[in-house]
Order: sequence, then C-alpha cells, then structure tokens
Amino acid sequence: MQPDRLDLHALHHFRTRSPLTHCMTNDVVQTFTANVLLALGASPAMVIEAEEAEQFAAMADALLINVGTLTAPRAQAMRRAIEGAMAAGKPWTLDPVAVGALSYRTRFCQQILSLKPAAIRGNASEILALAGMSAGGRGVDTTDTASSALPAAIALARQTHAIVAVTGEVDYVTDGQRTQTITGGDVMMTRVVGTGCALSAVVAASCSLPGDRLNNVAAACGFMKQAGSVAVKESRGPGSFASAFIDALWNLEAQA
Amino acid sequence: MQPDRLDLHALHHFRTRSPLTHCMTNDVVQTFTANVLLALGASPAMVIEAEEAEQFAAMADALLINVGTLTAPRAQAMRRAIEGAMAAGKPWTLDPVAVGALSYRTRFCQQILSLKPAAIRGNASEILALAGMSAGGRGVDTTDTASSALPAAIALARQTHAIVAVTGEVDYVTDGQRTQTITGGDVMMTRVVGTGCALSAVVAASCSLPGDRLNNVAAACGFMKQAGSVAVKESRGPGSFASAFIDALWNLEAQA
Amino acid sequence: MQPDRLDLHALHHFRTRSPLTHCMTNDVVQTFTANVLLALGASPAMVIEAEEAEQFAAMADALLINVGTLTAPRAQAMRRAIEGAMAAGKPWTLDPVAVGALSYRTRFCQQILSLKPAAIRGNASEILALAGMSAGGRGVDTTDTASSALPAAIALARQTHAIVAVTGEVDYVTDGQRTQTITGGDVMMTRVVGTGCALSAVVAASCSLPGDRLNNVAAACGFMKQAGSVAVKESRGPGSFASAFIDALWNLEAQA
Repeated sequence: MQPDRLDLHALHHFRTRSPLTHCMTNDVVQTFTANVLLALGASPAMVIEAEEAEQFAAMADALLINVGTLTAPRAQAMRRAIEGAMAAGKPWTLDPVAVGALSYRTRFCQQILSLKPAAIRGNASEILALAGMSAGGRGVDTTDTASSALPAAIALARQTHAIVAVTGEVDYVTDGQRTQTITGGDVMMTRVVGTGCALSAVVAASCSLPGDRLNNVAAACGFMKQAGSVAVKESRGPGSFASAFIDALWNLEAQA
Repeated sequence: MQPDRLDLHALHHFRTRSPLTHCMTNDVVQTFTANVLLALGASPAMVIEAEEAEQFAAMADALLINVGTLTAPRAQAMRRAIEGAMAAGKPWTLDPVAVGALSYRTRFCQQILSLKPAAIRGNASEILALAGMSAGGRGVDTTDTASSALPAAIALARQTHAIVAVTGEVDYVTDGQRTQTITGGDVMMTRVVGTGCALSAVVAASCSLPGDRLNNVAAACGFMKQAGSVAVKESRGPGSFASAFIDALWNLEAQA
Repeated sequence: MQPDRLDLHALHHFRTRSPLTHCMTNDVVQTFTANVLLALGASPAMVIEAEEAEQFAAMADALLINVGTLTAPRAQAMRRAIEGAMAAGKPWTLDPVAVGALSYRTRFCQQILSLKPAAIRGNASEILALAGMSAGGRGVDTTDTASSALPAAIALARQTHAIVAVTGEVDYVTDGQRTQTITGGDVMMTRVVGTGCALSAVVAASCSLPGDRLNNVAAACGFMKQAGSVAVKESRGPGSFASAFIDALWNLEAQA
C-alpha cells in the first residue's frame, strides 16, 4: 500500500461483506463508532452483558475490545466475549486505551494479550506500554510519536502474532516482519473524540475479511486518513469536521 | 392518517404538552434520543439506578424501556421503573432490540410483556420473535420486511393489548383491530445509529397524550418519516443527515 | 468581567494550559462534553472504575462529578475519585443534576458536599435544592429562573467555600461575597442535550487554572454564552446548532 493511496479494492470488499462488528467499547465513543462503521457499510452492534456478549461474539464477524471505560463487570463480560469469539473462530481486536497510565486496565490487557488477538490498535504510548517498553503517557493522550513506537509495535507483533497498528500523525501497521506506512489525515482528527477508537472498530471489522490481514488493516487505516483529509477541507471547526468526516467515509469511492 | 401526511394536530399537541419522557435506553443512542425528543419539544430524562428509576417513572409522563445494551442491574432497574409507572398510571413502551437473536434479553422481554406495555416498537425480526413466530435476525438488523411481520404485530397487539408498531421502509401501527400505514422517510435513516431507538422514545412520549393512542403512535412514526424525507435532501451523507434530521424535526410545521 | 464580554486572557490561559479533565459524568452527555473540552483546547478523559478513578483523579488537573445517571457503583467510584483528587490537591466540581427531585442522588450530593468542592454548577432548581431552600423541579428541567436562586447560590457558596454558578438565561457566579453576571447565549442551548453538563466540565477545568477562581469560572460561563450567541446565527435548528456550537468554541478568538 502506498502512502496517501486509498485501497478501493479493500473498500469495495469491506462494503460488500458488511461485517457484523461486535463492539465492546467505551461509553464516550459508542455513537461515533457505530456511525463510522455504518458509513463504511459495516453493521455495528454493542452487546455487553456477559452471557449475551459470549453468545453474540460467536454470531458476529468480528469483536472489538476497547478498555477506555473499563469496569469490573465489563472486564468479565469482555473475557466471555473473547472466549465466544475464539470458540467460533472469529477474530478479535484490542484497543488498549490509556494502558500504561492506569494500573487496573494495564493488568487486564496484559492478561487478555495471551488470548491471541488478531490485531492491536493503539497510539505510541499505549503500544510502548503494552510491549513493556514504557510507563505510558498521561491518560488518553500520547506523548510519543508513532515512529518512536515502531520497534515496540514490531516486538509486540512478534510476541503476540497479532497485526499491530500504532497510529498518529503517520500510521504504521506491522505483522512483525512487514510494515506498511499510512500517511494523510489531519490534526483535526485529534480534536474530535473517538476517531482513534472508531479506527479500532474499523480495524476489527477488517480482520474478518478474507485476504492478507496486514493489507486489510492498513487499508482500514487508509480509509480514515483519507476521510480526514477530505473532511478538513469541508469544515470550519471540529463540530462540522465530525459530520464531514462521516460524510467523507460514506463518499470515499466518489472522492477517490 | 394518510400516507406521507404529517399530522399537524398531533404535532401541535405533542409540542404543547412537552411530555417528560423517562428513557431507559441503550448506551449507543442516548444523546441522539434526547436530541430527537428535544427537537420535538418533549423533555427527555435518563434515570437508571433502581430506586430512582422507580421514583422518577411515577413523576414522568411516559417511560421507555429499550433493551439494546441490557445488563442484569439495568434489567432490575427497568422492572422497578415499570412498577413505578404502572402504580402511577403512566404508560410504558417497549423497544425489544435484537430480541430473538439473543437469549438473555429475549427471556427478559417475554417476562415484562405481561406488565401491560402501552406500546411496542420494533423492526420486523423483533416483532416476529416477540410474537413467537421467528427465531430472529442477526442482532440489530432485520432480515424481514415490516409487511411480512404485520400478522405477527396484529397477533401481538391482541395478546398484549398494546399498540404495536412494526417499522421499516413502511411502518405499520396496529391495535389488533385497526392498522395504520405510514410511508415516507429514506433509507439513509438506516445508516445513522439510533433512528429506530429514538422513534421508540417518541412513541413512548406520544402514549402520554390524550386522544386515540393508535393515532398518536402513528403520528409519531409520521414525524420521523417526514423529517427523514426532508433531511435527505439537505445532506451529503449520514453525518450531515443526522444534523439535518434533528433540524427537520425542529422545523416540521414550517416544512409541512 | 463585563456582561457579553469574552475574557480572551482567560481563554488563552485555558488553551495553553490544556487542563487534563477527569469527567465522571452521565451517560447521555459524554461525547458532547468531550468534544466541548477538546474544542476549547482541554484534554478530557473519562475513567470510571473505582480503583482507576482514584488513581486518575490524582494525575488529572481537575475532576468533574456529574450525577445525571448516578448508580450505586458509580457513586462509590466517585467518592474514591474525590478522595484521590483531594489527596493530590486537585480541585473537583459538582454538577448536581436533578438534585431535589430524586432522593438517592440528593442524599449522595449532600454527603459529598462536605468534601470541599472547588465549584458547583447547576440550574436554579438544583442550586435551591442543594442549599436546602426548595424541593426541586421535575427532573432535569428547572422551574425557576437563575436570579431567583441567587440568594441560595450565595448561601451555598458561604456554607461550602465553593464557587457557585447558577446558570440559565443569565448566569450568576458567586463566591459568597462577590457575584459576577454573564449574559448572552441563546435559548437554543436548552434544546441540545448536554450544554449545561458540558459547561460544568469547562468550569471544572477552569478551576485548575492559576489566578482568581471566581474570574476563571465566570470566564468559563462566558465561553459557552459567546459560542451559543455565534452558533445560533449559523444554524437552522438544534442539529446544526450543536455542530456550530463546537465550531464556535474552536474559533472563539477569531470571532471576538
């Protein structure tokens, strides 16, 4: 995948497969995550009670685990969902929000890391912390650049056999051997809550598609970068940007 | 009510009564639901702790029970709220999200169905499942058309004495004897999360109004169809559609 | 601070300090609250499990406690967070949503009132109830004007040593001795869910800034009033208003 190049083949694939994506995500980004998935043609569903989460993870095409507003009951339900997904052979993706900075979620993420995630998507601080190379940033913000965390991402991919996406001004997606670089987007994406979390949901969905998973995850990053580049031209601030971003995802082919 | 005809009398009634609507709804659609109710002149409130839910349901004009992100504590609080509403003679409305597909919520909804809901609003798969006529779809999506579920809706209305709205490309609202048909809207409404759930909140609010409840619920469906028809002309994708939809609800009279 | 005058010095201060604001707020307004803080240059984070809430409150610059969708586990986590903030010398702000109308949250807020909040932001009914001068309104709506609650606000400020902001068509901010008045804004702000709750988050963040706290809280109210005045001119209803409001916060200096 070349920088700044939208992967129209992967996009077409994504839209026609319409992956049913089970999102166990944080309370702040649920609506935006669902609307991002809908704009790309996927089918989002949020199911959180432990019994149902396990049942639904087996029915869905993909599972997202995002620990942004983790609680003890949610952690238990997430474990059940991961078990349901694994038993059914469905891929699950981890978004380790603020791991490193906060102890409870750090322990939880380290525990579930052994349950073979298909992909991991985080910012530099989170990937560094998850790889055991840093004590992390001050919460959800990253204090490192994505490139500085690329060695950690590669090490984490080799350790877990997951595709690891470390994202920021530039995104890097690696399987531990090959690394793809995705540029584009705009800094305005950091002034709207949930763009990173929603990207993780798109990554989760993309892991359910056939074909090369590294390519699929890189393509997912590319969808969001491209939409960000388009939306910033249509907006006067982060409010209109958020709407324009969803519109841009909807119209990606036409704008390519 | 004629197809494609906005019931301005019901709308005026809705706006001047400004029903205080207690929404116990899912985590994904809370903001959108509140903003839909506000745009129509109603007063939304979300109260979820069991003790408070029971107390508030008695104070509010109407109660919505939406099981989209049901949990065990929430189920208990919902029971208490229904008891509070019933003791105070206030109507409650059920949105049986994904019933049929998931076991825990299916059991819960079957149990509370005996507590005399004033109205039930669901898609075809959900109404079929609730009426015991289908095993349901794959989660929140429906795999049936609303018309195919009309016999189930009529049977469910006769069984429960609730007004049943089975909604989709065309909406059908029935009391088991009479059925009203509401057309209009746009497929874009399915690409924004929460339009169905928000409709259920408007249905709940409309059940608190005096007059014929079948007419009031059909009018509620008509408000949303009309706003969808207007909004799609003002939008370039589901992001701008969501904003335009709220604006259209706000401006319904002027556009009629 | 003069009425209708944007405090550009305070705004610059706010943006350059970028306070990390720990929001324990209700389920309905999380996204909007985060986006308001981001548009003003602050850094929001929602952390809710008790252990993490205590840990994070000590790391953050400011803590917001909003009881809109209070539950028993959340109440326990909020106590822990307040303890964490106090032990680290960080200010916390209370938004007593619907206090007076609902018993459980009223008891909770009266208990935590002794834990020395830096600021309290509510509507007239809530401030009257918290000061023990009223039985409260019908939930989240206020049935009193802010000016009618000014004596209660002054009494509450003297009792708690907090800055008290009682907001509505006109906002009053008092430390019990001095009172500042903030005008502007638009009634459309009451038709978008979360403007009051988001203001409380901005108040919380502003309490972390050096300088006179009364001025800082009044400036926070002024940011929101000014954005509301600008946004209403750019919008056709509450949907476009919500986007325009976020844009206006982002562009406050340019529009001043």
